[in-house]
Amino acid sequence: FPLGNRTEKPRTSGLTMLIDKGLGLGEIRDLLNLAGDYIDFVKLGFGTSALYYNDVLEEKIHLVTSRGIDIYPGGTFLEIAILQDKLREYLAMARDFGFTAIEVSDGTIDLSQEQRAEAIVSASEMGFKVLTEVGKKDPRDEFEIKEIVQLVNRDLSYGASHVIVEGRESGKAVGLYDENGNIIMSDLEELVHSLADASTLIWEAPMKEQQQELIIRFGPNVNIGNVNPHEVLALEALRVGLRADTLKTVLPRR
Amino acid sequence: FPLGNRTEKPRTSGLTMLIDKGLGLGEIRDLLNLAGDYIDFVKLGFGTSALYYNDVLEEKIHLVTSRGIDIYPGGTFLEIAILQDKLREYLAMARDFGFTAIEVSDGTIDLSQEQRAEAIVSASEMGFKVLTEVGKKDPRDEFEIKEIVQLVNRDLSYGASHVIVEGRESGKAVGLYDENGNIIMSDLEELVHSLADASTLIWEAPMKEQQQELIIRFGPNVNIGNVNPHEVLALEALRVGLRADTLKTVLPRR
Amino acid sequence: FPLGNRTEKPRTSGLTMLIDKGLGLGEIRDLLNLAGDYIDFVKLGFGTSALYYNDVLEEKIHLVTSRGIDIYPGGTFLEIAILQDKLREYLAMARDFGFTAIEVSDGTIDLSQEQRAEAIVSASEMGFKVLTEVGKKDPRDEFEIKEIVQLVNRDLSYGASHVIVEGRESGKAVGLYDENGNIIMSDLEELVHSLADASTLIWEAPMKEQQQELIIRFGPNVNIGNVNPHEVLALEALRVGLRADTLKTVLPRR
Repeated sequence: FPLGNRTEKPRTSGLTMLIDKGLGLGEIRDLLNLAGDYIDFVKLGFGTSALYYNDVLEEKIHLVTSRGIDIYPGGTFLEIAILQDKLREYLAMARDFGFTAIEVSDGTIDLSQEQRAEAIVSASEMGFKVLTEVGKKDPRDEFEIKEIVQLVNRDLSYGASHVIVEGRESGKAVGLYDENGNIIMSDLEELVHSLADASTLIWEAPMKEQQQELIIRFGPNVNIGNVNPHEVLALEALRVGLRADTLKTVLPRR
Repeated sequence: FPLGNRTEKPRTSGLTMLIDKGLGLGEIRDLLNLAGDYIDFVKLGFGTSALYYNDVLEEKIHLVTSRGIDIYPGGTFLEIAILQDKLREYLAMARDFGFTAIEVSDGTIDLSQEQRAEAIVSASEMGFKVLTEVGKKDPRDEFEIKEIVQLVNRDLSYGASHVIVEGRESGKAVGLYDENGNIIMSDLEELVHSLADASTLIWEAPMKEQQQELIIRFGPNVNIGNVNPHEVLALEALRVGLRADTLKTVLPRR
Repeated sequence: FPLGNRTEKPRTSGLTMLIDKGLGLGEIRDLLNLAGDYIDFVKLGFGTSALYYNDVLEEKIHLVTSRGIDIYPGGTFLEIAILQDKLREYLAMARDFGFTAIEVSDGTIDLSQEQRAEAIVSASEMGFKVLTEVGKKDPRDEFEIKEIVQLVNRDLSYGASHVIVEGRESGKAVGLYDENGNIIMSDLEELVHSLADASTLIWEAPMKEQQQELIIRFGPNVNIGNVNPHEVLALEALRVGLRADTLKTVLPRR
């Protein structure tokens, strides 16, 4: 491949996290047969997990985990649980269904430092891989780099394995993205340079241009999230240089 | 769920109408297994029904109706039939294939009042659920609220069960939507306040922001149409508050 | 149908070329059962073919070709092979997998006239249907009509069956498309009028508005490429006038 050194599963970097907004069992089976090696995490978007028939949810989780892929319910679901003071019940239910990871976020509600820490530690102790998320969903909330850096470091110290940088499903007007979905590179660089290890971040980057920018900036093994199921193979082609936009970066200059 | 009072099937309000632009039999089966309870109508978009192999069409209709979901061919197809003076043949054929509903529209051609009334009454008498549509597909045609109101009232009096507000597949530069897909709220309010019962309307709202606006304005049981098959579960999450954008509307203010 | 004279398979004009960015085997089987008669070429986008499991790739190729549809790997893949001086190996491998067509492009790298001619002739001699492509993928490269015309004529003389006009996956800011995806009609007309036979061209036109413009300009049997799998039936409806946008072109004027 034109771009070398792509990591293989099980990966700790170069992670691809899929957003599943409602794939049928046939679709997910099909996708895993096609591209299972290129998927590391599946997120059941928003609170959709609550809308599944139980047997369909259980079979989907089983299909995904049997391919060595982690699966977790969207962070909004946990936020609702905390709001209703049902963190323990939520985690127990997630474990019973077979979820292997938990996302701790406060994209919509406000969590105190203690609540956030408790969620991370509790999920961790129950054996979940814990992903936390930084950045608010509402474009009116500011993205303060200094606060983000503190949050990232604190989350990792409490046991989070990775921290997701919020990009929403749309990738526009949120966090590091302007209203057209362009990355605000000065913010990104400030964030990256303030962290000991930027590879603990997973960038939610649903748009192809965003994925391309991140690969050009960080290389093929950057962690990318909120990937559309139909774009998994296209993203992998981007990562390894099998697509024009990243291929040209390794061409000899004329 | 954060937002309560979501209706259950069979619903008369809170309807979700899907636009099917060409789902395979496997896809529709998969979707029904995943989210059949959240779908009330399936529209085979435009005139696509004419392009199916007969056995595939029959099986699709059977799959859908056996889940208690109504299915109908896109309005363009009926417009062509009327244009070719073949209304009766069209309705008979639709019945033979197993369609349970009919859309009467004049999005592209002009129908006289008599033609429109005849189509509604004929379809109704043959046992179809009748949906009519208001609003032209061409952005150069104006959307006159007063005329729309008259049309809605007349259609209902002739036997239409619901009236669809045109939004096209794109949701842009048509009817109540400006060229970016934003709802023109003043037009919407004028329309709603001129009607005895706005819950007879089904809003074609393919974009997530439109669905969100409508749910915030009318509550979880607004009727929404032209929903993308891959967005059915995401829309249902919006309706019941399992997604950030509607969840925040029920949060206690800080 | 409102618009008559649509060609039937096997077609030499009115071709529909699909871009497959990663359909599972179930999806492609489903799509072929639904719309196999409306598809003439399947392109495995970019270099994705290299990312398939061998048995999945072989089965996909078999499914497609058994329906009388040509299938080929994206041009980027061949560009990489030429870059690595492995044209022969590439063609032999493509033949062994069962691909029936080859795309010769220089969207990303620069090919000399000799290299391009050699690729066309070699693939042709090995029994492949050869499609070439004109236009660079990078928006900063200019689209010179005179050069394009020379290239088209030369490619056809070397044995190419059709020449693809680059539109990328996005259809924006490339070749004949401005940054919003609108066709630059003056360029298109100049190109068409400089060619002996414009029906040798396949227009990459992923956006519905582009497809519509081309059908209105050239009729139902224009060759269209980079069609999204979920839009095949919708495109066919456009071609035959079963959709508002092309139906209105054949309506009697009021």
